[in-house]
Amino acid sequence: MSRVYNFSAGPAVLPEEVLKEAAAEMMDYRGSGQSVMEMSHRSKEYDQIIKEAEADLRDLMNIPGNYKVLFLQGGASLQFAMIPMNLMKNGKADYIVTGQWAKKAYQEAKKFGDAQCIASSEDKTYSYIPDCSDLPVREDADYVYICENNTIYGTKYKKLPNTKGKTLISDISSCFLSEPVDVTRYGVIYGGVQKNVGPAGLVITIIREDLIPQEELQGVPTMMQYKTQADADSLYNTPNCYCIYICGKVFKWLKKMGGLEAMQALNEKKAAVLYDYLDQSKLFKGTVAKEDRSLMNVPFVTGNKELDAEFVAAATAAGFVNLKGHRSVGGMRASIYNAMPMEGVEALVQFMKNFEEAHQ
Amino acid sequence: MSRVYNFSAGPAVLPEEVLKEAAAEMMDYRGSGQSVMEMSHRSKEYDQIIKEAEADLRDLMNIPGNYKVLFLQGGASLQFAMIPMNLMKNGKADYIVTGQWAKKAYQEAKKFGDAQCIASSEDKTYSYIPDCSDLPVREDADYVYICENNTIYGTKYKKLPNTKGKTLISDISSCFLSEPVDVTRYGVIYGGVQKNVGPAGLVITIIREDLIPQEELQGVPTMMQYKTQADADSLYNTPNCYCIYICGKVFKWLKKMGGLEAMQALNEKKAAVLYDYLDQSKLFKGTVAKEDRSLMNVPFVTGNKELDAEFVAAATAAGFVNLKGHRSVGGMRASIYNAMPMEGVEALVQFMKNFEEAHQ
Repeated sequence: MSRVYNFSAGPAVLPEEVLKEAAAEMMDYRGSGQSVMEMSHRSKEYDQIIKEAEADLRDLMNIPGNYKVLFLQGGASLQFAMIPMNLMKNGKADYIVTGQWAKKAYQEAKKFGDAQCIASSEDKTYSYIPDCSDLPVREDADYVYICENNTIYGTKYKKLPNTKGKTLISDISSCFLSEPVDVTRYGVIYGGVQKNVGPAGLVITIIREDLIPQEELQGVPTMMQYKTQADADSLYNTPNCYCIYICGKVFKWLKKMGGLEAMQALNEKKAAVLYDYLDQSKLFKGTVAKEDRSLMNVPFVTGNKELDAEFVAAATAAGFVNLKGHRSVGGMRASIYNAMPMEGVEALVQFMKNFEEAHQ
Repeated sequence: MSRVYNFSAGPAVLPEEVLKEAAAEMMDYRGSGQSVMEMSHRSKEYDQIIKEAEADLRDLMNIPGNYKVLFLQGGASLQFAMIPMNLMKNGKADYIVTGQWAKKAYQEAKKFGDAQCIASSEDKTYSYIPDCSDLPVREDADYVYICENNTIYGTKYKKLPNTKGKTLISDISSCFLSEPVDVTRYGVIYGGVQKNVGPAGLVITIIREDLIPQEELQGVPTMMQYKTQADADSLYNTPNCYCIYICGKVFKWLKKMGGLEAMQALNEKKAAVLYDYLDQSKLFKGTVAKEDRSLMNVPFVTGNKELDAEFVAAATAAGFVNLKGHRSVGGMRASIYNAMPMEGVEALVQFMKNFEEAHQ
């Protein structure tokens, strides 16, 4: 068996020891005589799995007791609707549009109320984060919405926006658990797990309890009411049980690695290896404003489409896979999530150096 | 490793060889150097997995070309809303209520239009299927809705209702792929996979193309419009990739077993072993009208709650797990889905005989 270095933006690389454990437990989870895939979600065994996953996540992110942790289906794309459907009490929300996902969230919110874009970096293909220190947040806005790390474009908020006292809602799909966060600064902080946390098919929504509507919402599907999911501790219907189990293993791996402070240090080192090389390369260049660079998603180009394609093909053949940039921007992108080891980044940079030398 | 006999109603037993294959491919799917969990849903490898899964399902169920196969998240519970939101064109739908799931679907539909219950078996704790040969289906009803196999109560429609020309919509979650079906008789036939097909977190909706709204629906979340999912071949956003992969393996296993005719024959034999014993037992009795008995879910009682509990405990200790009846009805229930081997049913009946002898 030979594993590749997988730079996919998501679904993405997972820790090898998590996969090994899952394989070892596939036929018989710890003496239960069943695979976790075969377990009733109401069984004692599964109850322990989901409760431990939540407890470990609370530990890792230091989630206060007045926040609910919800394990939901439908991905961030369904949250794009659930958020305005549940949280637009005045019917108004302000969006900061820093990429395709923020834009989709904004457009979806317009279906359910008066959503306004109060800042955007679309003018420069989302290659930077706008100044958010003094935005025209409306007095009666229910919330301010951001996408904190922009997977496609490789930008990240280094400072949260000044929401002028309004509730902050953040999609952290592509920086989930990559560094410590102060949960208390958010009303809702949520992410699809398929980038940095686990397999696809699960979104984790962390929501301050007082934001959950206490009455049943008219015309809103039962499954899309946060109250339904919160009251049932994510077991209103059968959740994505196996995915929660794998995420639970990733949480334990992260704790063993030293938690989110340790991951941040490692992620900064990994990103520096790649960015430092890009900054001195004559062939490759990063596409993002330096001060807004993501630690997770690193887009770069040669400036020549044919050469980009040649690089991606050569890299793939050498075992560095999924380096092609998103179809909307082209070029290359290396996603270097938690589970990408330093050796993977170093090997990629060495490969890029060799490619550059061969193309002088 | 010792596997139990798992009679869970869902998530439920899966074929051992499917689990073994999944474990063997966990670290490296067929030379790709990646787990399927780590694969981009837009990769060539994954494209083949999802396309093959769909093709095999079409083969197994003989799905005509004018039906779309959608791999969706949110379970049957989200379909309870998507169906009326997408298909109530006149704003009217008629529901036949044969259990808790049909009732939930009916109640959810009432949020979105004029849903009417045109028959029910609630009067006898859903222990039978009502006569559906001449129901008061409304002239302008958009559809007639049924839950074809009632997991909790153990009933199954042996004959589809006379819908008087209206579109039939059926939830087949707990009899999915247990026997051949004539897809052309349905407008929508759908099911959560976590009972008879795969791990939890996926619902497969098979919908006749002309029923999919061609215009965008106002006020309906993008993710909940069948058009969104159909236009994108279930890849509008990241689906539950790993679950689709496991279902694909189950489809191949079913084909190897001889397809749905062969499964039906086997399921009838398995159910007969259990029902024949129940019919002559002095201790245990089935709870369902004989003519409406499910092949998949077999509820039974002793008539004595303490004895029921004693039986469940003894069975669990002997490796027959998840025999406790649903919390809403009590007693016992043996779910004997496709992946439960004949030996499992025979061993259970032997155990019941011994228990009966010991309690004479």
